[in-house]
Amino acid sequence: MASLRGMQQPDLSKKLYKLIKTENHAIGAYESAGRERIAIAQQLSEWGESTNDDGISEISDKLGVLMAEIAEQEDAYAQSLEEYRGVLKQIRNTESSVQPSRDHKAKVSDEIAKLKYKEPQSTKIVQLEQELVRAEAQSLVAEAQLTNIKFKEAYDIHFAATIERAEKQIILAKQARRVLNLLDDTPIVPGDTHPPFERGEEARQVLNDAEDELRSWQANLEPIHSSAGTLGAGAMPGVEV
Amino acid sequence: MASLRGMQQPDLSKKLYKLIKTENHAIGAYESAGRERIAIAQQLSEWGESTNDDGISEISDKLGVLMAEIAEQEDAYAQSLEEYRGVLKQIRNTESSVQPSRDHKAKVSDEIAKLKYKEPQSTKIVQLEQELVRAEAQSLVAEAQLTNIKFKEAYDIHFAATIERAEKQIILAKQARRVLNLLDDTPIVPGDTHPPFERGEEARQVLNDAEDELRSWQANLEPIHSSAGTLGAGAMPGVEV
Repeated sequence: MASLRGMQQPDLSKKLYKLIKTENHAIGAYESAGRERIAIAQQLSEWGESTNDDGISEISDKLGVLMAEIAEQEDAYAQSLEEYRGVLKQIRNTESSVQPSRDHKAKVSDEIAKLKYKEPQSTKIVQLEQELVRAEAQSLVAEAQLTNIKFKEAYDIHFAATIERAEKQIILAKQARRVLNLLDDTPIVPGDTHPPFERGEEARQVLNDAEDELRSWQANLEPIHSSAGTLGAGAMPGVEV
Repeated sequence: MASLRGMQQPDLSKKLYKLIKTENHAIGAYESAGRERIAIAQQLSEWGESTNDDGISEISDKLGVLMAEIAEQEDAYAQSLEEYRGVLKQIRNTESSVQPSRDHKAKVSDEIAKLKYKEPQSTKIVQLEQELVRAEAQSLVAEAQLTNIKFKEAYDIHFAATIERAEKQIILAKQARRVLNLLDDTPIVPGDTHPPFERGEEARQVLNDAEDELRSWQANLEPIHSSAGTLGAGAMPGVEV
């Protein structure tokens, strides 16, 4: 099995590789939920029409519109998660590129240990120790950049998206409850017919209100602070960020 | 193909049957999203540990806890949708049971039309017309009950669940942003090492705050009004509600 080693991800990036893959499944689930929700909105509107009840027909159609918009938010959320996943991939790529430097460090450490045992007086020990310091510095800079700066950027996007979906869906679901309350469910005694539905104008107004609220929605978040601004462009040579 | 007719849902309940099925797929998608999110939370914590950076290790672990809780909300949402779907099924069952009454009405109407054409003086016409009034009354009561009362109940549950998931996920995502801000992303110059992470206590406090907020969360909704209280139990004979 040792011959398969080279085909695997470098050790450091293996865990993140797995996370990125799982995140892809999660995004797929949200995309699927969005698609199903749009179909449900359409089916609800069609069912309402088939009941031949003016009130149900009107209300189910308006609810369908709001539910389709809730579905759109599910899809927008999936797209933001895709963006966050892109940043995780940058971290993973950096991790992969740091691996040779880690391997080099490990090799130099081994050599020093061996020399100290076999030729404790060798001048090569000092030389190797200096090389180790340089190797450590090099990988630490790269790791500091990747793990902290990009990590904050990734989860800033992630949680901002969670909040945006939630706030917009609250707007829509609250307006949906207003629409629902326009439906009269007073039971009908045998022989009577449903009174005509006369609140169509109010129902249309609710949709307008929902649209206005969504349009004026703004992110109101505790900003994620970064002290990364002072980092020179050359801190991570050869790694695209 | 005509012989397959009997295997299909009655006309009236066919549309709702489809909606209930699509809703089942949507619920499955949310359950799947919840499962993936829990796996991601675990993988994030494990990745953080593997970086050998105290700060990342601590923060990723705390974020993992909050993300697992966000995932739980996804699952609780799926369960509420299942409850709403159960109410839709009640409507569908009532619709199915109303179908024979609809068919009967259509048959009586046909007979009246034929008689009026062939024997306009027949006394049977009056008799059939009275039967039609009774048949209409019977199905109207059942339909009024099912379409309006249960419809409001179903979407009350649906939108309350949307709002609950959203409000609880906002609590968790905002606390997650607080945790994220505890991570120092000041770049490290070559040769330096990460300063030790000293904000573990604050990070733990954020988790406690999130837990407290979730525990004290209460639904604050515009109630869905119902005028159904006056309906006698016998209004829909033979239909379980």
